[in-house]
Amino acid sequence: MSQMYQRLVIVGVGLIGGSIGLAAKKRGLAQSVLGVVRSESSGKRALACGTVDEITSDVAAAMAGADVAVVCTPVGSLAESVLKVLDCCEPATLVTDGGSTKEKIIRQVEAEQTNLGSRSFVGSHPLAGDHRTGPEAAREDLLADKLVVVTPSTNTSEETTERAEQFWQALGAHTTCMSPAEHDAALAKTSHVPHLIAAALAAATPEDALRLAGTGWRDTTRVASGDPSLWRDIFLHNSESVLAGLDSAEAMIAQFRHAIAGSDTQLLEDLLGQGKTRRDAVGS
Amino acid sequence: MSQMYQRLVIVGVGLIGGSIGLAAKKRGLAQSVLGVVRSESSGKRALACGTVDEITSDVAAAMAGADVAVVCTPVGSLAESVLKVLDCCEPATLVTDGGSTKEKIIRQVEAEQTNLGSRSFVGSHPLAGDHRTGPEAAREDLLADKLVVVTPSTNTSEETTERAEQFWQALGAHTTCMSPAEHDAALAKTSHVPHLIAAALAAATPEDALRLAGTGWRDTTRVASGDPSLWRDIFLHNSESVLAGLDSAEAMIAQFRHAIAGSDTQLLEDLLGQGKTRRDAVGS
Repeated sequence: MSQMYQRLVIVGVGLIGGSIGLAAKKRGLAQSVLGVVRSESSGKRALACGTVDEITSDVAAAMAGADVAVVCTPVGSLAESVLKVLDCCEPATLVTDGGSTKEKIIRQVEAEQTNLGSRSFVGSHPLAGDHRTGPEAAREDLLADKLVVVTPSTNTSEETTERAEQFWQALGAHTTCMSPAEHDAALAKTSHVPHLIAAALAAATPEDALRLAGTGWRDTTRVASGDPSLWRDIFLHNSESVLAGLDSAEAMIAQFRHAIAGSDTQLLEDLLGQGKTRRDAVGS
Repeated sequence: MSQMYQRLVIVGVGLIGGSIGLAAKKRGLAQSVLGVVRSESSGKRALACGTVDEITSDVAAAMAGADVAVVCTPVGSLAESVLKVLDCCEPATLVTDGGSTKEKIIRQVEAEQTNLGSRSFVGSHPLAGDHRTGPEAAREDLLADKLVVVTPSTNTSEETTERAEQFWQALGAHTTCMSPAEHDAALAKTSHVPHLIAAALAAATPEDALRLAGTGWRDTTRVASGDPSLWRDIFLHNSESVLAGLDSAEAMIAQFRHAIAGSDTQLLEDLLGQGKTRRDAVGS
């Protein structure tokens, strides 16, 4: 395919940023793929994994001549990183991100970025991940056939949203659009609350019982291996929706408890059937 | 290797029973592997999958000359199936089972089996499974390197326990022993409560949010695809330990909630760290 971009800039070359780089290189999407890193050591790792062509720690230098910049730093520092990029990018440069929460970040960017009106920024969240982190975990097919949620705010132009969708599609992903608030409410239920509960289950398992953990425990708690500081920030960024989603999950757990405590065979089977229907609808 | 047994009888040839049959045939463990089934159609399926050499629905005929019988029917009818086998087996025949709960079943068997003292029965639970069921899901390596818990009661002879351990080890599994009550308390925490919570999470996810379910949701809720009637019976058979295990899990979830609601960054990271430590200790 012909090259869509001269220069693609990836700020933060970990699991997501690195996988974007690998996919972009594999697909010949840009003449050069440039990684912006905080430290020399993380730059060396990113280069060693072949995720980007070049690295720099100078955001302003990286943004000169960039068609697209995608910011993939952790949620806790994401708004700050996006603001740095917007400060020095050209108006035509598409700027997006890969963060797991959206509303708080986008509100902060829009509140602090005085020249935002002349910039092409829209939030994104690729629904692709792994409990491992870092460029070593990056894969060129991590985004393939995955869904990326693009989250325009009321300040985002249609053109910017379209360009962001085209960018993710060119990497092999599908796209859908919703507001930052809608995104956060939905993802609390499909990602953040499941993560919280998986972590709680793992933490609640007595150490001496771990040798009895089988496939079911391993699957159910797998995401608990994720980076605690990353997930701490996701929960705190989306606390309102996470607590609301937790209310729903706990109400459902209470129904299971009620059925078991009352030996209500039919209710218990119905509840398990409802879980199976939802789970089977998604596939393996 | 030399054949340990003349005749191995498997009562109930589904996922577990079928996998035992495949492993026994692969390892040349018995001169003949005989499946006891309830219906002609389930017998045809078991034979079509190559899990057993022969099938019958006549328990008494099957038990003539059997060295070992392993009962792998669902938990809800397991005690009844074990009692049928014990009624017609010879004293020297080792009888065990593959059920996921132990105390209630073993108490029922010991209460109803008048000639138990002259029989070689001990409960077992292979910690191997899959959310799929039936002989089509059986695999010859399902038990390989997995742990089987053998659960002698105060009425079980040491010799019977040892013979059961040798049987499972000959199929490629490791073994450990604990009382039926200890087994049920531990498995509530490592299997039954995780299953309950996974099912509740899946059931609590709104249908229109399912398209946003990523890898984390898929892993965390995978076991919810299990057979509702099987799991209904497991929960009801082990209700006391399941409700106690649920108390611990919910207390841990409440700590996460408290940390998020109070924006307690350090507590939240500590709790996530505790979950990660437990999860990492088990491996992928």
